[in-house]
Amino acid sequence: MNVAVIGSGGIGGLYGGKLYQAGVHVTMVCRSDYEVIRDRGITVESIWGSFHYRPHKVVRSVSECDPIPDYLLVCTKAVSDDTALKLLEGLPEKSDEVAVVLLQNGIYIEEPVKKFRPDLTVIGGIAFVCTFRTQPGYICHTDYGRIVLGDYPQGVSKKTRLLADTFKKAGVPCEVTEDIIRARWGKLVWNAAFNPLSVLAGGKDTGEIVSDPYLLNIARSVMEEVVRLADADGHPLSPAVVDENLEATRAMSPYKTSMLLDYEKGRPMECEAILGKAVKKAEELGVETPTIRTLYNLLMSFNRKLGGKNRDV
Amino acid sequence: MNVAVIGSGGIGGLYGGKLYQAGVHVTMVCRSDYEVIRDRGITVESIWGSFHYRPHKVVRSVSECDPIPDYLLVCTKAVSDDTALKLLEGLPEKSDEVAVVLLQNGIYIEEPVKKFRPDLTVIGGIAFVCTFRTQPGYICHTDYGRIVLGDYPQGVSKKTRLLADTFKKAGVPCEVTEDIIRARWGKLVWNAAFNPLSVLAGGKDTGEIVSDPYLLNIARSVMEEVVRLADADGHPLSPAVVDENLEATRAMSPYKTSMLLDYEKGRPMECEAILGKAVKKAEELGVETPTIRTLYNLLMSFNRKLGGKNRDV
Repeated sequence: MNVAVIGSGGIGGLYGGKLYQAGVHVTMVCRSDYEVIRDRGITVESIWGSFHYRPHKVVRSVSECDPIPDYLLVCTKAVSDDTALKLLEGLPEKSDEVAVVLLQNGIYIEEPVKKFRPDLTVIGGIAFVCTFRTQPGYICHTDYGRIVLGDYPQGVSKKTRLLADTFKKAGVPCEVTEDIIRARWGKLVWNAAFNPLSVLAGGKDTGEIVSDPYLLNIARSVMEEVVRLADADGHPLSPAVVDENLEATRAMSPYKTSMLLDYEKGRPMECEAILGKAVKKAEELGVETPTIRTLYNLLMSFNRKLGGKNRDV
Repeated sequence: MNVAVIGSGGIGGLYGGKLYQAGVHVTMVCRSDYEVIRDRGITVESIWGSFHYRPHKVVRSVSECDPIPDYLLVCTKAVSDDTALKLLEGLPEKSDEVAVVLLQNGIYIEEPVKKFRPDLTVIGGIAFVCTFRTQPGYICHTDYGRIVLGDYPQGVSKKTRLLADTFKKAGVPCEVTEDIIRARWGKLVWNAAFNPLSVLAGGKDTGEIVSDPYLLNIARSVMEEVVRLADADGHPLSPAVVDENLEATRAMSPYKTSMLLDYEKGRPMECEAILGKAVKKAEELGVETPTIRTLYNLLMSFNRKLGGKNRDV
């Protein structure tokens, strides 16, 4: 199996390394970290056991991938739809056998890719993991790690199952789902609440959010709106997910959300993937999501300063 | 006429001084600025002409007012219902002739006073003014200055009319209204939007808010919710007030809201008066105000750190 991993951050560095350990031919596609990784490889400090690996190939763009990979594992931050599309432009023609795996946050992030290249298998991937890049070529994986994969918009193809099996062989807990959209709504319940609040409340970790009655009020409203949205979208979640998510967050060690880490480092935040697409879907479906919309607008106002992509409002 | 002015900040210092100029006997009730004002009086730099005055009396509490004033002009920040009630405790018994004038921000702030002392005339006052204390005994009045007065919950008593006439004699544009609650809802349209956003967007002046499409979205939602609330409360505003307020804000020189000034100085913000009471009223009336509620909860989370009074949530 031949996998090109786009993005050598926390997600790409960790899961690329696990695939490498499972005997997969791994090409790492890097931008800013290219030289460090080409020269020194990637060190992963992980709760699963720390390790170091040198990807079989390190390149700067997808067009340099040779041979053409079986899977294009997109692990960049989902800051704009353009990112994935630009990557695909680098893919040589007649690469129809390539499966694009979007191992990213958000909802309906597969849509533009599927629209642009309907011939490709587009796989949605959700990682439940705490992992981050401490410096170029250094990844720190501190908690969790499970992955869920499913074809977009639905089903589980042979290719998806094969990738899931390979992850499992590598020691990564991995499930497949027939309804990746539902799985994404399910993860959004948490993401849409805790990511924005961590930034908007002035830099709070998950523990501070769940122990602040005011922030908890907002979190609950956001979660309920996501449940209503998923329902209207035909991918219903159990209403119990709200309490389950809050309970689980109380139980976990407090940590800073990815959005807060981005904000603190002055990097664009995933406003569109996590909130903007939900707001847009709500408008399409005629569902009221005023809490999400308010947080989205506040975040986008902050994001403007960080160079984030703006959606027309 | 004998007036006791509570609070020697921007509002109290300015309007107390104007009444002084109109020949009113002014007792200034101060806390932290007591000594400075007793010794040196108050200097007002004003667009109406700068002046200096020494109040006829400077005291530390209402109980020291002698003679008992005709009007108790409450000009403190409306950070908690307790403030006004504590002041009234200082009022000697049989002071039924005293009118309490709440020249403060917010909605339904007169209610606890009226409940505590139903015998008193309770007058609501709204000041449309940019004025602030630069240091103890120094007031800077930079723009506007109009006052609206009305009896709570409705009507215009002789006492209210007399005070309005005295303000006018002092050169202060002053109107009376039969429906002070409606007037408060009208001012809240602006206050509920711009005060919270100036803080929550990371310290923005009014000009920055109206020129940011994301913040403008939120401001509009808040304003529409206030219009719906006032309507449900039986004090309807014209729906045109939303555009009128936005237009007026675009036209005015950008400035920092009082809430932002408080926040920057680490002082408690008027969350309850400006937002909390609106949220409570919305619950009573069964009106949905999700945008206001979200901003309220975010602000209260910030306010906790500033020592602001918390409402049970």
